[in-house]
Amino acid sequence: MNHRIAVIPGDGIGKEVVPAGIEALEATTGRFGLRLEFTDFGFASAEYWQRHQRMLPADWEETLRAFDAIYFGAVGWPTVVPDHISLWGSLLQFRRTFDQFVNLRPCRLMPGVRSPLADREPGDIDFLVVRENTEGEYSSVGGRIFEGTDRETVLQETVMTRIGVDRVLRFAFEQAQNRPRQHLTSATKSNGIAISMPYWDERVAAMSERFPRVRVDKFHIDALAAQFVLHPEWFDVVVASNLFGDILSDLGPACTGTLGIAPSANVNPDRHHPSLFEPVHGSAPDIAGQGIANPIGQIWCGSMMLDHLGHSEAAAHLLGAVEDVLALGPKEAPLTPDLHGTGTTAELGHAIAERVRER
Amino acid sequence: MNHRIAVIPGDGIGKEVVPAGIEALEATTGRFGLRLEFTDFGFASAEYWQRHQRMLPADWEETLRAFDAIYFGAVGWPTVVPDHISLWGSLLQFRRTFDQFVNLRPCRLMPGVRSPLADREPGDIDFLVVRENTEGEYSSVGGRIFEGTDRETVLQETVMTRIGVDRVLRFAFEQAQNRPRQHLTSATKSNGIAISMPYWDERVAAMSERFPRVRVDKFHIDALAAQFVLHPEWFDVVVASNLFGDILSDLGPACTGTLGIAPSANVNPDRHHPSLFEPVHGSAPDIAGQGIANPIGQIWCGSMMLDHLGHSEAAAHLLGAVEDVLALGPKEAPLTPDLHGTGTTAELGHAIAERVRER
Ligand SMILES: CC(C)[C@H](C(=O)O)[C@@H](O)C(=O)O
Ligand SMILES: CC(C)[C@H](C(=O)O)[C@@H](O)C(=O)O
Repeated sequence: MNHRIAVIPGDGIGKEVVPAGIEALEATTGRFGLRLEFTDFGFASAEYWQRHQRMLPADWEETLRAFDAIYFGAVGWPTVVPDHISLWGSLLQFRRTFDQFVNLRPCRLMPGVRSPLADREPGDIDFLVVRENTEGEYSSVGGRIFEGTDRETVLQETVMTRIGVDRVLRFAFEQAQNRPRQHLTSATKSNGIAISMPYWDERVAAMSERFPRVRVDKFHIDALAAQFVLHPEWFDVVVASNLFGDILSDLGPACTGTLGIAPSANVNPDRHHPSLFEPVHGSAPDIAGQGIANPIGQIWCGSMMLDHLGHSEAAAHLLGAVEDVLALGPKEAPLTPDLHGTGTTAELGHAIAERVRER
Repeated sequence: MNHRIAVIPGDGIGKEVVPAGIEALEATTGRFGLRLEFTDFGFASAEYWQRHQRMLPADWEETLRAFDAIYFGAVGWPTVVPDHISLWGSLLQFRRTFDQFVNLRPCRLMPGVRSPLADREPGDIDFLVVRENTEGEYSSVGGRIFEGTDRETVLQETVMTRIGVDRVLRFAFEQAQNRPRQHLTSATKSNGIAISMPYWDERVAAMSERFPRVRVDKFHIDALAAQFVLHPEWFDVVVASNLFGDILSDLGPACTGTLGIAPSANVNPDRHHPSLFEPVHGSAPDIAGQGIANPIGQIWCGSMMLDHLGHSEAAAHLLGAVEDVLALGPKEAPLTPDLHGTGTTAELGHAIAERVRER
C-alpha cells in the first residue's frame, strides 16, 4: 500500500520535530509492508513569507489536493509576520478549504509522564476532545465603526450553521458510541452567550435522540475548565465549538503533563479532501533552534495519520512504541527536558524508531 | 460608620452561605466599631420566578440603588427556570444596569488547603483576575435565519467598545502598578478571533504606554489556560474579556483547591452605582439543601465588600481569620467536605466568626 504525503514543516520547532516524525513513520511502514511517499514543501513558513510576502503559492490548493494526507509541523513566527496573518493565510485556510471540520485531540496520561495534577496515574486521564474546526467563534466577519472616537465600537461575528454544528456533533456521538464508556460531554456557555450557545445546546439535544446509548451531559465552559483539573477522570468524549475546543485541547494536555506529546488530526471525514495532522504545541519560538523540542506530539500525529489512512494496526504499533519509551522514564530513555530528561529531539526520535523496529 | 447593605441570597446554596457570611461580617464590624444594616430581598430566585414569572420586581433598580452595596449569594435553578432567563433577568442585568464593569477575582492558594496541583505550597499561587463585566462575548445581539432548513444560520455578536475596553484595562494596569510584582498578563486569541481580539491587543498596547513600570505580556487563551496549570506562579494580575475572564476565574480557583472559597466583586469603580459581591461557585444544585456548602467564598466576599466600603483594616482582619481557620486543617477546624473535612456550613461559619472576635 502506497500513500502520498505532503510534508509541511513550517516554522520553529516544526522543522525540528518533523524529521523525527518521518523517521518513526518509516520505521513503522517498514514493519508493516506499507509505503509512504513524502514530498516536502517550504511554504506556510516565515521564510516563505519573507521571500513572497504571502504564506502560500497561488496553486497551493491543487498542489496539496494531490496528496492523501498532510503532515504538518507548526506555523507562526510573530517577529516576522503577525500571527493572525500567518495563521489565516495557511493553517486556518487549510482547515476551511479542505473542510477539515473535525479536529480530534486525544488527551491521555501516558506511562512515565508526570502529571502536574497530584496523585494521578496513567489510565486516570483518557479522553478525546472533538473540536468543531471550520466555523463558530473563529471568524473574520465584523468590523469597526466610529474609529478613533469615544464611540469606537467593534463587532465580531460568531457564525454557527445547522450543517456545521450537526456534522461535528454526529461525529462526536459516533465516537462516544464506539468507546466503552459511551459518555459524551458538551461544552457550552448558554447562560452568558445568549444566541449561539443555546442553539448549540438545542442541536446537542436533538442529536442525542439518535444515539440513545450515549450518556450526554453538558457543562458551561468555565465549570468544565475547572473540572478538567479537579476531575479529569469524569470525561470520555468532549465535544466543543471551535474556540472552546481550542481551549480544552490545550488545557487537557497540560493536565496530562506536557503539551509536547499532544497530537491533533484535522479531519475531513468524508474524504473528499486531504486531512492534516499537526501537533498541538505550535512553533515555540522560546525553545526553537536548540534541538530539545519533544518530537512525540509529531510522532503521535503520524500514528493518527496511519489510522486515518486505514492502517489501524500499524498506528497502534507506533503509539505502543511511544508508550514503551515513555514508560522507561527519563533515566533509561533520552526524554526531552519537558519530560524531565536531558535527551534531544533527535535522540528521542531515534529511540522511538528503534523501539518500533524491535517490539 | 454606617452602611446599608442589600442582601440577596438567591437560590440553592446561596441561601445557606449568606447567613454564615453575615455572621462573619457582624463579628468583624463589632470589632471595628462599624455598622452594616442588612436588608433581605427574596427576588432573583426560583421562588420569586414561580410566584411572578419574572426574576425581579418592576422597581428593583430604585430599590437597590438606595444601598451602598449588594451582598449576593447565587442565582440559577435550572429545573424551574432556564439559566439564560434567570441570569439575564437578574445577575447579568445588575452588572450592566449598575455598570459594574470590573469583576475582580483573586485566586490564592490558602494555608491548609490542598491544591489539585502537585507540590504547590501557599504563596506559590496568588494572582488577581480582572474581568471585563459588561460587554464583549456576553451579548444577546444576533439571531437565526433560514430556521429549520439546511441553510439554518445563527449569528452571535461580540461587542467591544473603546470606552468599555479602555476602562477595564486602566483599572487592571492600576492594580498591577500597586502590587509588588507589577506584572500584567493579557488574555487574547487574536490569532483565531480576527476582529475583536486584535482590537483588544491594540488597546492593551496603547494603555501600556501610560504605565511604563508595569511589565506586560499576553497569552492566547488556550496557552494561558494550560499555563494556569503548569506555571500558576507566573501570574500576578491577569486582565481578560468577559468570556475569557469567566473561564480563567473558574480555572484559577480550581487550581487553588476548591471553588468553594473563591470570591468575586462586581465593581463600579466610579461609585455611581452600588457594587455587588458574590462567590464564584453558584447555586450548586447537586449539594444544595444538605448544609455542607463551603461558606468561605461568601465570607471572603464580605471582606472584599468591607474593603470596597473603605475599611481595609477590617477587611484584612476578616480575611486573616479565614486563613487562620483554614491553616488549622480538617482535623482541628470544622472544614467542609470540599476541604476534606466533615464540618457543616454553619459550623465553619461559627468557627470563623469566633476567630474574628479572638484574633
Ligand atoms: C452564571 C454565569 C452567567 C456567570 C458568568 O458567566 O458570568 C458565572 O459563571 C460567573 O462567573 O459569575
Ligand atoms: C495557532 C492557532 C490559530 C490554532 C487555533 O487556535 O486553532 C492553535 O491554537 C490550534 O489549536 O491548532
